Amino acid sequence: MIKIAIFGFGSVGQGVAEVLLSKGDVIRRLIGDFEVVAVTDSKGGLADENGVDLAEALEIKRKRKRLPEGVTTMYIIENMDFDVGIEVTVTNIEHGEPGLTHIKECLKRGANVITSNKGPLVVAYKELARLAEKNGARLMFEATVGGAMPIVKLVKNDLAVNEIYAIKGILNGTCNYILSRMERERLAYDQILAEAKELGIAEADPTYDVEGIDAAAKLVIIANALMDMDVKFEDVERVGITKITPEAFEVAMEKGYTIRLIAEVDKIEGILRVSPRLIPIQHPLAISGTLNAALIRTDLAGDVVVVGKGAGSKETASAIVSDLIELYRCRD
Amino acid sequence: MIKIAIFGFGSVGQGVAEVLLSKGDVIRRLIGDFEVVAVTDSKGGLADENGVDLAEALEIKRKRKRLPEGVTTMYIIENMDFDVGIEVTVTNIEHGEPGLTHIKECLKRGANVITSNKGPLVVAYKELARLAEKNGARLMFEATVGGAMPIVKLVKNDLAVNEIYAIKGILNGTCNYILSRMERERLAYDQILAEAKELGIAEADPTYDVEGIDAAAKLVIIANALMDMDVKFEDVERVGITKITPEAFEVAMEKGYTIRLIAEVDKIEGILRVSPRLIPIQHPLAISGTLNAALIRTDLAGDVVVVGKGAGSKETASAIVSDLIELYRCRD
Repeated sequence: MIKIAIFGFGSVGQGVAEVLLSKGDVIRRLIGDFEVVAVTDSKGGLADENGVDLAEALEIKRKRKRLPEGVTTMYIIENMDFDVGIEVTVTNIEHGEPGLTHIKECLKRGANVITSNKGPLVVAYKELARLAEKNGARLMFEATVGGAMPIVKLVKNDLAVNEIYAIKGILNGTCNYILSRMERERLAYDQILAEAKELGIAEADPTYDVEGIDAAAKLVIIANALMDMDVKFEDVERVGITKITPEAFEVAMEKGYTIRLIAEVDKIEGILRVSPRLIPIQHPLAISGTLNAALIRTDLAGDVVVVGKGAGSKETASAIVSDLIELYRCRD
Repeated sequence: MIKIAIFGFGSVGQGVAEVLLSKGDVIRRLIGDFEVVAVTDSKGGLADENGVDLAEALEIKRKRKRLPEGVTTMYIIENMDFDVGIEVTVTNIEHGEPGLTHIKECLKRGANVITSNKGPLVVAYKELARLAEKNGARLMFEATVGGAMPIVKLVKNDLAVNEIYAIKGILNGTCNYILSRMERERLAYDQILAEAKELGIAEADPTYDVEGIDAAAKLVIIANALMDMDVKFEDVERVGITKITPEAFEVAMEKGYTIRLIAEVDKIEGILRVSPRLIPIQHPLAISGTLNAALIRTDLAGDVVVVGKGAGSKETASAIVSDLIELYRCRD
């Protein structure tokens, strides 16, 4: 019996709970029996060593209530028996907390960790990887980069024998939505941003997205975890999309190009940057809408491109559950 | 010590040997120690239970000579001790031989099989899958569909929890090369085909590619192995690219479309076909050149697109070695 603890019960945590409930049979066929022994949010939680009622936890949230007070994430980590912690609390890329402490403490006690939380990995990937190895645990993080766009396990498994020369991609759906609408409609940045806010595609304070901070955070994870580099967030050369004009698109399109916010790490060229770039209109990275995309340049397989939904509750849950299956898959 | 036997020593077999030699250290770090105990071609081979000299085998081929006579694939399968057979003989999609017998006999004795050979899987995927399960062996076939384009393990692992509604893609690089040149240069099909033959991109007899036979074979594997269907090659509705005119591209492009040979299996719509389709010019499947691409439609992850090199000796070898790593990866 695989014992799972879920830390964080916002959109992603609830998405995971929904998938564990609705796809329980499929998952059990792949990894054997499992149960969720704890679910926590920032103020409380449910815990039961014989399995908590996920439907009940979801129902509490549906009524916009909090989980019962008394049980905390740290209490669970220190006192309960579980095999894998799913860390999906709110991300903070400056200090990584509270996720960083949650992940460290899980790994220290030898529990595997699956996370969608960029913060801890941006701040301390190498330390966490060492901690995992030392304690015979595994740290899985498919969902930190690009949601349902498959890239982490793709590079680690499908391209395992390849040297990765470079990875460049579109890692922020909000920016890509704004730029692809500017391309199509030739409206001003401010106007489309305002509409994106109304649609819930951009935050009230859009800085994190439009200044390339989110994309740079993902790029740091890609460089350190998939290309064996050792870079910090501050090392990323970063330009956002706020200065791009409809006229820039006019000029670009005349020459067969469009403009996209490209996050790029290139070992050969020594590049580590997030910035608006000209992309040929038929290039695989010239995608539209809130999608994410990545081009992986390798020595044997050549260039491999992946495109997928970079955000969304069930998309992120799909990535998290794929990590769960990777951890515990029953092989004949 | 993992013991490997390689059956078939043409372009793909030699590519595998080169990667096992040049990337030996990387591979050993991932799966532990291995050795190749046999290499065979259609007339002979090298075998040594302590490991054959791959460099010597490659040197023989470089001099355009045959491997020594006397050792045959069936002799190896019946008499030698090996853990995994890499079956990379010439494909035949009508009867699947000689690969079909090689794969069956390997599985019957409990050896794992990795193959790039479409024929056996088109003819008898379900039978081979059952045989593998019965004998506690695994059948790996990443390289049968789209070379270095990752799709088999991507669907089975990264999208494991998803229901796959549909997969559509560009599964033949020769057709895509011809169509993307017709799109760009508006020349007649025959003229570009002639040039493609000169460049070695099309065969002297191009029927297998341009009539959609190759794409249909891959589609059958996708349907049966990745979508749990039970279809035969004859079930595929199939139209090739020989009738497409520059004028058709003219009309399509005016409306913002291009034309591509799309292989498509859709459980919801009941589609199983290979045919030229109109594709919006900025659609992720509107790729150019000899690339392959696939769009995978799922319930949770939404649409995931992958693009990669569909052929080539080292690209195919990369896919085969990724299967080897999947089979034997050492986990902490």
